[in-house]
Amino acid sequence: MAFRPRFPAAFGQFARSGLALGRSAAVRQSLKTHAPCGVYSHQLRTLRQSSKCSVKYTSETYPELKRDERFSRISEEHVDYFKKVLGGGSAVIDGVTNDAAADDIAPFNGDWMRKYRGHCKLVLKPSSTEEVSKILKYCNENMLAVVPQGGNTGLVGGSVPVFDEIVINMSRMNKIRDFDDVSGILVADAGCILETTDHFLAERGYIFPLDLGAKGSCHIGGNVSTNAGGLRLLRYGSLHGNVLGVEAVLPDGTVVDDLCKLRKNNTGYDLKQLFIGGEGTIGIVTGISIQCPQRPKAVNVAFLGLDSYEKAQQAFRQAKSHLSEILSAFELMDEASQAIVHRVTQNKRPLESAYPFYCLVETSGSNADHDSEKLQAFLEDVMEKGVVADGTLAQDETQIRALWGWREGITEAVGHLGGVYKYDVSIPLKDMYRIVEDTKARVQEAGLMGDTDEHPVVDVVGYGHMGDANIHLNVATRYYDPRVEKVLEPFVYEWIAGRQGSISAEHGLGLAKKKYVGYSRSDNMVGLMKQIKQLYDPNGIMNPYKYI
Amino acid sequence: MAFRPRFPAAFGQFARSGLALGRSAAVRQSLKTHAPCGVYSHQLRTLRQSSKCSVKYTSETYPELKRDERFSRISEEHVDYFKKVLGGGSAVIDGVTNDAAADDIAPFNGDWMRKYRGHCKLVLKPSSTEEVSKILKYCNENMLAVVPQGGNTGLVGGSVPVFDEIVINMSRMNKIRDFDDVSGILVADAGCILETTDHFLAERGYIFPLDLGAKGSCHIGGNVSTNAGGLRLLRYGSLHGNVLGVEAVLPDGTVVDDLCKLRKNNTGYDLKQLFIGGEGTIGIVTGISIQCPQRPKAVNVAFLGLDSYEKAQQAFRQAKSHLSEILSAFELMDEASQAIVHRVTQNKRPLESAYPFYCLVETSGSNADHDSEKLQAFLEDVMEKGVVADGTLAQDETQIRALWGWREGITEAVGHLGGVYKYDVSIPLKDMYRIVEDTKARVQEAGLMGDTDEHPVVDVVGYGHMGDANIHLNVATRYYDPRVEKVLEPFVYEWIAGRQGSISAEHGLGLAKKKYVGYSRSDNMVGLMKQIKQLYDPNGIMNPYKYI
Repeated sequence: MAFRPRFPAAFGQFARSGLALGRSAAVRQSLKTHAPCGVYSHQLRTLRQSSKCSVKYTSETYPELKRDERFSRISEEHVDYFKKVLGGGSAVIDGVTNDAAADDIAPFNGDWMRKYRGHCKLVLKPSSTEEVSKILKYCNENMLAVVPQGGNTGLVGGSVPVFDEIVINMSRMNKIRDFDDVSGILVADAGCILETTDHFLAERGYIFPLDLGAKGSCHIGGNVSTNAGGLRLLRYGSLHGNVLGVEAVLPDGTVVDDLCKLRKNNTGYDLKQLFIGGEGTIGIVTGISIQCPQRPKAVNVAFLGLDSYEKAQQAFRQAKSHLSEILSAFELMDEASQAIVHRVTQNKRPLESAYPFYCLVETSGSNADHDSEKLQAFLEDVMEKGVVADGTLAQDETQIRALWGWREGITEAVGHLGGVYKYDVSIPLKDMYRIVEDTKARVQEAGLMGDTDEHPVVDVVGYGHMGDANIHLNVATRYYDPRVEKVLEPFVYEWIAGRQGSISAEHGLGLAKKKYVGYSRSDNMVGLMKQIKQLYDPNGIMNPYKYI
Repeated sequence: MAFRPRFPAAFGQFARSGLALGRSAAVRQSLKTHAPCGVYSHQLRTLRQSSKCSVKYTSETYPELKRDERFSRISEEHVDYFKKVLGGGSAVIDGVTNDAAADDIAPFNGDWMRKYRGHCKLVLKPSSTEEVSKILKYCNENMLAVVPQGGNTGLVGGSVPVFDEIVINMSRMNKIRDFDDVSGILVADAGCILETTDHFLAERGYIFPLDLGAKGSCHIGGNVSTNAGGLRLLRYGSLHGNVLGVEAVLPDGTVVDDLCKLRKNNTGYDLKQLFIGGEGTIGIVTGISIQCPQRPKAVNVAFLGLDSYEKAQQAFRQAKSHLSEILSAFELMDEASQAIVHRVTQNKRPLESAYPFYCLVETSGSNADHDSEKLQAFLEDVMEKGVVADGTLAQDETQIRALWGWREGITEAVGHLGGVYKYDVSIPLKDMYRIVEDTKARVQEAGLMGDTDEHPVVDVVGYGHMGDANIHLNVATRYYDPRVEKVLEPFVYEWIAGRQGSISAEHGLGLAKKKYVGYSRSDNMVGLMKQIKQLYDPNGIMNPYKYI
């Protein structure tokens, strides 16, 4: 991707807040470590170094969860079968007959947030769809529960075992199967890492139509299974539209061979869609085919300061009108979130003054000059009309990364303060930010928020993908306190339900939101979902204790 | 939409073939009548005028189809119930107790192609989801078969009854329920007409992300039920990505209330997807919510002549690279198809010479100058490299329509010659046109094609949405001849199956392709689809004799 310097002398009104290279490098450094991929490697190491680490077992955190005694305990005979199918070696990590394997199993038993921890004793790493089919068929016949696992970068505990479920880790199925450079249609194994896949596409002038912080670790099969949204859904749309085909294995070993390489195929029910966002509860995705767009030749990023949420909405409307087909991200950050990033990173802030809200606007297009002109027209318009109070424009790729750091760095910065209560929710745009204000007011009224240590809550912050009406509500605490949880739940979920929002915009249900699905779905819908689960997985062996 | 004159002096190489207004108007006139919407009104009239018209009953054309005797015959008591629920009046067209209603029922018993004709004696027009629910529940309990019907503009007989199924026509559910002009999310009844809905959106600066010839008659609920593709899928993507929510009624009366107004909602299986392309076989879609993009401010159309299919592929690759985010259509037409349009319309052709292939390239963007510059750069590039032999560029909206007429007018022109065998198929791009060549060779070898009346076949032509790898193979005949069908089938389907293509790219299965689904789907997949049908419609009352 070529970045060209632009607007050398434009935007007199815009503050030149000087994103000097030294500071940008620091932000980049911070970016490198804050993303789930970085954190994940670190956690992996930590977990490996100390398998008896302090992370509580999920079964202790959620004492109401009981092991389903319909499931068999894993025996030596079971392990022998799997070794026969997978050829032993590193494809089977066996903690059933070999206690010394516990350390090797630990990373598959936990998540990068150190929030969930299972009792799994057997990890299987199939290398073909046929192997997955044999494993599942056997597990189904022998009532062995399984947890499909991709890059294990999720936020809701969906890919972590709770009890002694067998982990089926997809990392060995990591081959690009086919790519057509006229149509841009890619067919690949589920275990391909998102970033690696995107690099493959970049060399051919294409882009994977999904991007997210965990790209260095997450699997494309996991992305599909969780219907990942990410940073550029605004531009490229959802996986339900981009994924053309899915290959998946059902619990009874049936291969759903729906790996269509066509943009159009109206021959029957679109069953693959059930696996997109199915979170491994009805089968394991083993391969996908996906429509990849042309890689944009030019990317621009502007960072704006605004006086109110009303103005942020106006700016979004203007951005859609001016930038239309090249608008690739419109992110919202409140002052509280930026203050925390500043407090943790000590980086100089992009704008000279503080504003109640900030927006990061990104364009991606095929012609740098055209894109710059459009962005300039947008910026002139919003400045002239007083919609935007101040702003800065990245001059090169380093500055682009630096500006993104103020958005992407929030997750890590907030985590630095202590525990965080996180809610990833969709709310119709006009009400979207009000959930942050109402939650903050409620926490304050309860006397739980303050500058001193007797107050558990440091601040309530909001940020997210404004273009998708998807906000991340974060309650940053010094320490976890049951009083905080009581004030927050079910308040937050009820608030969302009252506005027909979604309690999980992009992170899925997993274990974390299983019991709250009723706030976003009617009884009818939950009933119909249970019917589908029952249809495909009558024994309930697929990713139990989670989802529906 | 504002069209500005562009390229006043550009493209010396380009032939100025003079699409004078007089001729363009003729093309437009032709356009007005050829589209299914126009034809449909005409057919409606014809059918009304003569209910005993010459169209054969489907049950005669397909003598292997037998009425399923598990279904009840409609009684007076049934009719009374429906009158009670729907309040009588025009909501119930009763040919059961009133023979005089036969003429009123005729249009609902046939299709615009005059290819299918049913024996239906009762048409119901519910005006609310609640009414649909009551009707279906009653039908299910009383084993009354039903056919959901939208604008009835389909090509595969999906919305036409075969025997005495009750037609549930959705035309009275035609209200816009909600529109959010910040997010562009529309919620509307299933019976809204596509064009009317798009006009509503146009007034607000938005566009319905689907466009097709039948827009003046087809319903948006029907579009969703058949997963319509249309002319601008290349730009806006498929309905699986754009439709955010569906409200549907299952045979047992359950309302699937999944009318989500959020771009992101990861809370469970995405069941609405089963109704997108479900062709009314598991339920009736009563409402949809859909993400609508900004309406483009500028539209450009170029019409190119090319010497080979290889060059057409090169031109497509170049178009994607140069036009990227503004490319909204890339259509392919062969010389045979254009010669037929010329023969029928007598319009002057856009280019001075004939070429083996033509491409229509359309851009839609937010900035006319930028779009023109991009298109100019593309055209210069393909002319310079000798990819394109000649071309012309529309100078205003009239000329845009005229050029589109050479693409959209094919269907009608081919039909003028006599009967047409039509195949709407997807084939990976590199092989796509070869199906036309191979089919033509086969028909010629069989001695069935020629200039004189003893030859049934006039020509074999190919055209379609190259951007979607979707070609329409049309075998134009003077008269239907069983020898032609024998030469074509299963040859065409086997040819497609051998290249992992789709036997129905966008028209669906309906009655026409029910028995050929095995050419595009594995036994596993067909089995899984039947399982879904069985799950939702165990009595099989929904649109019987069709689909799976």
